[in-house]
Amino acid sequence: MPEFLKVKTAEEVLALVDRIAPLGEETVPLEEAAGRVLARDIHAAGDVPHFRRAVMDGYAVRARDTFGATESLPALLRVGGEVFMGKPAEVVVGPGEAVIVPTGGAIPEGADAVVMVEYTQEVGDGTIEVTRPVAPGDNILEPGDDIAQGSPLFRAGWPLRSQDVGVLAAVGLRSVPVFRLPRVAILSTGDEIVSPETDPVPVGKIRDINTFVLAAQVREAGGLPGLRRVVPDDPEGLAAECRQALTDHDVVLLSGGSSVGARDYTVQVLDRLSGAELLVHGVAIRPGKPTILARLGAKLLWGLPGQPASAMIVFTAFVRPSLLRLQGVNPALRPKTHSCRAVLRRNMPSVHGRADYIRVRLLEEDGTVWAEPVFGGSAMISSLSQADGYVIVPEHVEGYEAGTPVMVHLFGMETLTA
Amino acid sequence: MPEFLKVKTAEEVLALVDRIAPLGEETVPLEEAAGRVLARDIHAAGDVPHFRRAVMDGYAVRARDTFGATESLPALLRVGGEVFMGKPAEVVVGPGEAVIVPTGGAIPEGADAVVMVEYTQEVGDGTIEVTRPVAPGDNILEPGDDIAQGSPLFRAGWPLRSQDVGVLAAVGLRSVPVFRLPRVAILSTGDEIVSPETDPVPVGKIRDINTFVLAAQVREAGGLPGLRRVVPDDPEGLAAECRQALTDHDVVLLSGGSSVGARDYTVQVLDRLSGAELLVHGVAIRPGKPTILARLGAKLLWGLPGQPASAMIVFTAFVRPSLLRLQGVNPALRPKTHSCRAVLRRNMPSVHGRADYIRVRLLEEDGTVWAEPVFGGSAMISSLSQADGYVIVPEHVEGYEAGTPVMVHLFGMETLTA
Repeated sequence: MPEFLKVKTAEEVLALVDRIAPLGEETVPLEEAAGRVLARDIHAAGDVPHFRRAVMDGYAVRARDTFGATESLPALLRVGGEVFMGKPAEVVVGPGEAVIVPTGGAIPEGADAVVMVEYTQEVGDGTIEVTRPVAPGDNILEPGDDIAQGSPLFRAGWPLRSQDVGVLAAVGLRSVPVFRLPRVAILSTGDEIVSPETDPVPVGKIRDINTFVLAAQVREAGGLPGLRRVVPDDPEGLAAECRQALTDHDVVLLSGGSSVGARDYTVQVLDRLSGAELLVHGVAIRPGKPTILARLGAKLLWGLPGQPASAMIVFTAFVRPSLLRLQGVNPALRPKTHSCRAVLRRNMPSVHGRADYIRVRLLEEDGTVWAEPVFGGSAMISSLSQADGYVIVPEHVEGYEAGTPVMVHLFGMETLTA
Repeated sequence: MPEFLKVKTAEEVLALVDRIAPLGEETVPLEEAAGRVLARDIHAAGDVPHFRRAVMDGYAVRARDTFGATESLPALLRVGGEVFMGKPAEVVVGPGEAVIVPTGGAIPEGADAVVMVEYTQEVGDGTIEVTRPVAPGDNILEPGDDIAQGSPLFRAGWPLRSQDVGVLAAVGLRSVPVFRLPRVAILSTGDEIVSPETDPVPVGKIRDINTFVLAAQVREAGGLPGLRRVVPDDPEGLAAECRQALTDHDVVLLSGGSSVGARDYTVQVLDRLSGAELLVHGVAIRPGKPTILARLGAKLLWGLPGQPASAMIVFTAFVRPSLLRLQGVNPALRPKTHSCRAVLRRNMPSVHGRADYIRVRLLEEDGTVWAEPVFGGSAMISSLSQADGYVIVPEHVEGYEAGTPVMVHLFGMETLTA
């Protein structure tokens, strides 16, 4: 492992994240497919519909029998029977005949169009008048008109939504090849951190917050939080915990106690893990400088700052995208991100020379979505729940003025709309 | 049950939904609290921090010993010891003394401020120079400064986000009172519907789609999908299924086979359920006219259109808000909705006299989020996965022109951003 790596920009880290390969493939029943990411291209196994269907309530007819029909000179057709919903058509439509069909019903043999019931009138002796002509094919769905057998439905890398599952059900899929979900171990370290059970908390100690927040964030990002533990601040013991966690997790999140020195501390831990390849050793953003990314074979280890507010930002900015890549999400297929536009409500000062990730609260007033900076210290636990996301002030910009339209990167997946 | 009820507007239905009471309360461990809705107001059980903490790396001092200090005339202080992270302060700061403290460390007795390490210099003989004065309280967090014991943290009805769980962990909560999640039975009926296992599907039949899509939508809305079944189209048998489902579910969704007559059909089913109170019998929107809402004691029964695309729209417009109310979400506390702004990419014609819910696809181009109408029939299964949500064209508006800014009501919880 190289002794020293240059601090990277956020863009460089995201470029590395983009190259993370998806985990292996597994098959899930259709009931569990929503939210999962397809591991293979899906083609339609059969035609939808698989029989000729009426798309309107009316009469199945031979179109040529209606040619020239008008209100004043209607075509007269004999009603030769009825097709029932969900049943095959057991009648044949001969010349001069019409057969009653419901929307979705099967088209009987001989017919090549459906006249909408609105353009017919029962005469009373088993005959109807048709007051408008239909062309062959009118109001009929041919087999495969909706989805043709063999046609491409979804690409590998596509995250399945509720409605997509409906399409898969329609073509008869009962199970779906998807990428495995990343299993994530969350270790929180720091000499001052005690498990939240601790009561009373001794002077000098504080309760662990990060494993709770990060586990909730992992779950929201589609990952499976596994081991969650507060680990004493000792490189040897911590390395042993990481080694153990890596045996049955795909990702280890290690949030450091204090940010000063945490970077080098995590590196000391990595030095003790064989095969660890350090990819990121510090990111030029504030907060988040101590961020670490290492690869151990196909597994990832993220080192995050210890401050809960900072850990949340780094998770949202880098760890979440990495979990989505492990799940196989192809961002090119659906360019959706967890962000929204807002207007800055107050001035947002920033220090030149480093990208500032400044937390904001969203609020809605007078039909506008406003972003209000949450100032006053990421050390304040109370500020955690005041923020909905963050705004990035780039390195070479010295803050934004109130009224500036900004993009808010959301911690959660909710949307606020005016 | 009254024989006839006027078709309601969407606003009238939502006003009824707003009055739905939350389900009962239960207690969940903090690990499972994210995404749940608080059933009671939460106050801080203790102070955060619970001891005097340094917010900077530096020296704990008596502020008065630094008064008047400058670069040219620094104050000289004797280093009396060190406070270690996570430990109580075992030294006392006397006059003319300074004690080393890390960020987050305990402030020793006698000290009333912290001098940042940047404004000090070691002289070498156990003495430091302080080059800037500090005022009492500088760089110190007093007990309760962050969160004071007894202060209100969250109101009942607040949906807990990841970051909120962190705040609850900080005040030592290990379990949380939340509202129960609604258990939802999903019945799909229609003479043409067969279970998706069916292979080959007989002519005239189609595979069930709605139970899959609705179950995924229920889960995404925080509900627990329970029973999912395709039920033959017979009021007697369907009523028996509903009766059974209502014993261990809070909500029954009944999606009708065809929309024609489905409204009256569901009412026939309700007539057979004792104590059913019909609240909504038809909604003046397209699609969605056959929508039914009935109350059976504290339980709800929704009748939805059979067309999958129509059922999705009615779910999103009315059923999802009802599930959020059952979960206890107080919309006044967090006015977030699942919608986003977009610009219409093509003309959107609409029929005067009924609110049109027109499905759209979202896409991003040239920095703009566009909404492109999905035309061509809600009967088309393939159109299901083309739509991300819908735009409402109100009753008295005859469509919108391309370029109009619109609000898109999202089927899912994702956000698209340019």
